[in-house]
Amino acid sequence: MDGSAMVSVDLDILPDLLGYNVRTAQLALQRSFARAMSDSEMGSGLFGLLVLCGANPGIAQVQIAEHLNIDKASVVSLVDRSEERSWLQRRRSTTDRRRHGLFLTPEGMAYLSALKERMRVCEEALDDLFEPEERRQLISLLQRIRP
Amino acid sequence: MDGSAMVSVDLDILPDLLGYNVRTAQLALQRSFARAMSDSEMGSGLFGLLVLCGANPGIAQVQIAEHLNIDKASVVSLVDRSEERSWLQRRRSTTDRRRHGLFLTPEGMAYLSALKERMRVCEEALDDLFEPEERRQLISLLQRIRP
Repeated sequence: MDGSAMVSVDLDILPDLLGYNVRTAQLALQRSFARAMSDSEMGSGLFGLLVLCGANPGIAQVQIAEHLNIDKASVVSLVDRSEERSWLQRRRSTTDRRRHGLFLTPEGMAYLSALKERMRVCEEALDDLFEPEERRQLISLLQRIRP
Repeated sequence: MDGSAMVSVDLDILPDLLGYNVRTAQLALQRSFARAMSDSEMGSGLFGLLVLCGANPGIAQVQIAEHLNIDKASVVSLVDRSEERSWLQRRRSTTDRRRHGLFLTPEGMAYLSALKERMRVCEEALDDLFEPEERRQLISLLQRIRP
């Protein structure tokens, strides 16, 4: 414990800013997620990529960018890391041979299934903080904030 | 417009996860903030650092880390960048000469004042999304999520 913790800090305008509150909550969730995954590289981007590829075999990178709200360069970097770890492959789409799509490998499917189970436990830990109705309310308010 | 946008995407478990919803909202806010600031380096960390130094002259780095919910290495990097841009200085604390504290320079104070004004406009743009009571509710629910 540092002596400075005894001094109270004036947060000025920060507590009234939506930006500060969303960012602080996001950092706390990210930390508990990384702990639960025991994988320092595993963040919400990589998790989202694997979930979307699992539910949408052949999905295009542009669709990943759109639904994870990240830019295309970030998607390419996530896809590269997932390919290196043998979780997914870029292949020609089965429905449109001009397009390339993303497909989980069998290792990727097994890993995703373990990740989802750990994520379920992680989210359940939040149930202590919110009544079911409050949780629905929070998600519905957050969903109004869109790019 | 890409043809793939016509294909609907199954988001699987993502829309029910607090983690995904908080992250997606945070990315949207971060983007609108960076646009408003017209400064690609200006993020919530740098903004928070300047606000805390402005309101608490001589604040310690460990207190910045605690209140912005980031690790000490990240604080050092933010402080270095702010020193390079002449917005703040590390100096000996006036109350405890064993400690070093952070102080805004006159340039830093002027810049912070402009930043706060732009942030106010940024947050006001969100008023279209929420009734005042909903906004208070959202902030209060987010504040329950802490490290």
